[in-house]
Amino acid sequence: MESIAYLGMGTMGSGMAANLVRAGYPVTVWNRTPEKCEPLVEMGAEQAETPQEAVEDVNVIMYCLSNDDAVKSLLTGDEGLLAGAHSNQIAVDMSTVHPVTSRWEAEAYGQRGVEFLDAPVFGSKGEAEAGGLWILVGGNEGVFEHVRPILEPLSASVHYMGGTGKGTSMKLVGNLIVAAQMEAVGEALVLAKKSGLDLHDVMDVLDVVDFRSPLISGVGRSVIERDFSVSFALKHMLKDANLIAYLAEQLRSPVPGAATVREVLKAAVNQGWGEENASAVVKALEVQAGVEAEA
Amino acid sequence: MESIAYLGMGTMGSGMAANLVRAGYPVTVWNRTPEKCEPLVEMGAEQAETPQEAVEDVNVIMYCLSNDDAVKSLLTGDEGLLAGAHSNQIAVDMSTVHPVTSRWEAEAYGQRGVEFLDAPVFGSKGEAEAGGLWILVGGNEGVFEHVRPILEPLSASVHYMGGTGKGTSMKLVGNLIVAAQMEAVGEALVLAKKSGLDLHDVMDVLDVVDFRSPLISGVGRSVIERDFSVSFALKHMLKDANLIAYLAEQLRSPVPGAATVREVLKAAVNQGWGEENASAVVKALEVQAGVEAEA
Amino acid sequence: MESIAYLGMGTMGSGMAANLVRAGYPVTVWNRTPEKCEPLVEMGAEQAETPQEAVEDVNVIMYCLSNDDAVKSLLTGDEGLLAGAHSNQIAVDMSTVHPVTSRWEAEAYGQRGVEFLDAPVFGSKGEAEAGGLWILVGGNEGVFEHVRPILEPLSASVHYMGGTGKGTSMKLVGNLIVAAQMEAVGEALVLAKKSGLDLHDVMDVLDVVDFRSPLISGVGRSVIERDFSVSFALKHMLKDANLIAYLAEQLRSPVPGAATVREVLKAAVNQGWGEENASAVVKALEVQAGVEAEA
Amino acid sequence: MESIAYLGMGTMGSGMAANLVRAGYPVTVWNRTPEKCEPLVEMGAEQAETPQEAVEDVNVIMYCLSNDDAVKSLLTGDEGLLAGAHSNQIAVDMSTVHPVTSRWEAEAYGQRGVEFLDAPVFGSKGEAEAGGLWILVGGNEGVFEHVRPILEPLSASVHYMGGTGKGTSMKLVGNLIVAAQMEAVGEALVLAKKSGLDLHDVMDVLDVVDFRSPLISGVGRSVIERDFSVSFALKHMLKDANLIAYLAEQLRSPVPGAATVREVLKAAVNQGWGEENASAVVKALEVQAGVEAEA
Repeated sequence: MESIAYLGMGTMGSGMAANLVRAGYPVTVWNRTPEKCEPLVEMGAEQAETPQEAVEDVNVIMYCLSNDDAVKSLLTGDEGLLAGAHSNQIAVDMSTVHPVTSRWEAEAYGQRGVEFLDAPVFGSKGEAEAGGLWILVGGNEGVFEHVRPILEPLSASVHYMGGTGKGTSMKLVGNLIVAAQMEAVGEALVLAKKSGLDLHDVMDVLDVVDFRSPLISGVGRSVIERDFSVSFALKHMLKDANLIAYLAEQLRSPVPGAATVREVLKAAVNQGWGEENASAVVKALEVQAGVEAEA
Repeated sequence: MESIAYLGMGTMGSGMAANLVRAGYPVTVWNRTPEKCEPLVEMGAEQAETPQEAVEDVNVIMYCLSNDDAVKSLLTGDEGLLAGAHSNQIAVDMSTVHPVTSRWEAEAYGQRGVEFLDAPVFGSKGEAEAGGLWILVGGNEGVFEHVRPILEPLSASVHYMGGTGKGTSMKLVGNLIVAAQMEAVGEALVLAKKSGLDLHDVMDVLDVVDFRSPLISGVGRSVIERDFSVSFALKHMLKDANLIAYLAEQLRSPVPGAATVREVLKAAVNQGWGEENASAVVKALEVQAGVEAEA
Repeated sequence: MESIAYLGMGTMGSGMAANLVRAGYPVTVWNRTPEKCEPLVEMGAEQAETPQEAVEDVNVIMYCLSNDDAVKSLLTGDEGLLAGAHSNQIAVDMSTVHPVTSRWEAEAYGQRGVEFLDAPVFGSKGEAEAGGLWILVGGNEGVFEHVRPILEPLSASVHYMGGTGKGTSMKLVGNLIVAAQMEAVGEALVLAKKSGLDLHDVMDVLDVVDFRSPLISGVGRSVIERDFSVSFALKHMLKDANLIAYLAEQLRSPVPGAATVREVLKAAVNQGWGEENASAVVKALEVQAGVEAEA
Repeated sequence: MESIAYLGMGTMGSGMAANLVRAGYPVTVWNRTPEKCEPLVEMGAEQAETPQEAVEDVNVIMYCLSNDDAVKSLLTGDEGLLAGAHSNQIAVDMSTVHPVTSRWEAEAYGQRGVEFLDAPVFGSKGEAEAGGLWILVGGNEGVFEHVRPILEPLSASVHYMGGTGKGTSMKLVGNLIVAAQMEAVGEALVLAKKSGLDLHDVMDVLDVVDFRSPLISGVGRSVIERDFSVSFALKHMLKDANLIAYLAEQLRSPVPGAATVREVLKAAVNQGWGEENASAVVKALEVQAGVEAEA
């Protein structure tokens, strides 16, 4: 059985690492704030003091960090991940980063004989804990097949998308739709409210029609209940919108809708809701509407 | 059993009228081009020569037309619907029109002692034929309860939304999300193609993730197969986007995303794809991308 | 010398009527709130009690109202303008209304043998008072030549644009650029502030470069000085943006920029600044920026 | 008198270098394609074979390149500019680059004891040749005062904006308005054409009203005459829109209008007009309008 180092015990990482432990893999964990490793250690994981130490004796290296800088910072520097990585290892980055960063990682690992897969996920806290993520993989297909069994306890489905960077590309393509749905639900609910509709009745409709989605239902209910506790933080949605804009810039791909949605997300973060759930984008629209939000 | 006049044998109307006949209701049909009534007559419907004649001897009047002008034109004029309508009747407009038009209808009918419900539908050709529409009803609740059994053979679900115009308001609120999804899928697929992803693989992902929707799956597949045969015409999607813009103008409700999407729909119609399926909005984005569409 | 009825003593109308009196024309004025006529009466104008009475004995009828409904309301009804209008008169509507309204007016006047010109203006309070407006005329060219001498004391220049509605069309075409400049200055100044630039230095640049405009200089200075006293009210800028959107809808003309700008104007009005100067659109952007406005 | 190295003989650089020679400065020129230096050599300039050689014996180093990568590439590498630069020199980058690049340059030069100013310009080919540019300077104010006399023969005005990166920040702030005006003129002219207005009449109005700008007049005339010969290339306008988007992303500054305009520029470049003048953005709008462009 493969031994695994899982680095970063954030919302996503701690859920995934726990599922690996539960699946019986020997797991070494590391986190910048060491206390966050405790629940995993109680479940049976080893704890390392540095990224370098965490990866030295394992077959597979995994992490899911919040942005491109966090990834670069984990890999480089004294006692960084790359200092401990060596040939016959496979590194799997599950973060949502730019495909350019994925290619940079592949290159950095390649120089040390380490295989690399970009493997970002759809789904947030709940799916990470329940092993219900959707995983998108880019990199060498043989390497992917080797790692696949490890990804299964984490996921509802695993999708091989092609060479390096294709996993992160797919993530951004999908997140364009996520952001569009999030913001559109916001516009729709504000318009519904101004139209004098009962929002519970509105959600009853949106739950059954053929443009329903679990995301729309979830976001809609959270807006009605004014429950913006974080599952996927608004600031991360903005970060992803920024990555989408940059990918679309490089490929010169038209994204008029996504460009507009990004501005709404930006406003919502500027107005102080970045740490809330992404569904709080509706609050920026409520401000634009001159509508008082209800507690 | 209620006798019903169904006026307008377009894509939606012919499907709904057929389901009413099948459900055993005595149905009188009328259409500007009389030949389109033939399939219904073969099923057992009566055919009237004018809207006035069609409605004179029935309990319930129903129609689903393509826009506000078509509705006004049906109701007014010599031998128009209003010339034949009288007290103890219920009129049910299933068209997607502006709530202002719904209120105008309610007023016009009210002067003749006719009850009125605005009852637009989600779903297109397939759902109309299969009796799988989602119906949104505005108007007097008692009148709605009276008519409800007639709506059931047409629909997957029926939703009472409140007073006059609340059905059409709900329709526009929902269609804001429809338009956003349609256009976002277009942006996403163009970005995916420019990213070098295989579009079948992309759709496999979009079919299962938590922002999946039947609409996204359907639109995505139709784009890959370059099958833009009409289920819901692009020109009607633009018409709805125009209604949304106007409702949002009157209520001063912010719709930055919907406003941007409307411009893309407008471009797509201007470029000659208005008679194709609404999924052809992707073609406008392909032009903006400088991407050659494949047959 | 032509006798003139000038109806409506708002910001624009009172300035224009005063210039007509100064130019020596016999002028009859009317206003819904009669007190507002006093300054004109002191200058030598006659005052009428109703629109009907105001126009009965003059050659030329002029007005500049705030929107399409105000125009319709002035013309129709008991003692309305149309009740007093008759052949051998010329009516000149200087309001910014939709070309459809201009055509409706031309039709209504035509039935009474009255010639009609749509003649909206660029410029606001200052230009109206100083006789420095730019006037755009639609209608019969011979009628325009007849009226031209009357327009000269009001204006810096007069432009004949073509048949009925061409004056109002030109106004909306130009106002698309006005709205774009207004909003762009707002975005630019907020970006400048976030960049740590001194806004006075920024305006020194914007005053001289080849994309300078008197409007940009004026708006920029008013933003720096936080002086939003009305010259052209924000709510009227939104009204014009709505007219532009509707004209572009009818002509299916692409206006992605104007559509986006309209949403920002909408937000600014919703946030309570509709009665301030149009330059207050920057406040909506400051909210989106999370920037505290300075008194 | 200061000796000057001017590197890069593109549209802007060759005009500026010529004006420096005319002003009597000893100028050494360099260009990747050496032939482009010939006109300057004929005027009396020296020609160097490498950037390193060009800068070794001068007091002031100047260049105006097309983008951030070109700047980095000029400075680094064997025989690059930095290899020849040394203390007691002042480097002046007149390119439009991101403020981050300006700060990178300041750092790189600082390590070699070279003073640095970012000094991008407004104006294009004509202004460069006529010595009528508007120059925006960031960096140490004493250094700026030292260099100021050299900038005067190039410019209509010179503006000191503050520390390093403030010149390039101002450039992007201003270009936000440039892009907005360019695209708005495109929307306005397409709307005017669809309204049946004569475009010459329209430009006569736009030349005199208080939102007139030299840029609007120039762009408008070039669109009417279908003359898109390059003064400022569309691809460079898109590059600047990308820099604006990135600056606004870093500062989280709201740019809904600029974000939308960027998408139109992107489409115009994708459709093949990147090498034409920036006014060719109108062509993308004509495509969206379904309007045939006239030769």
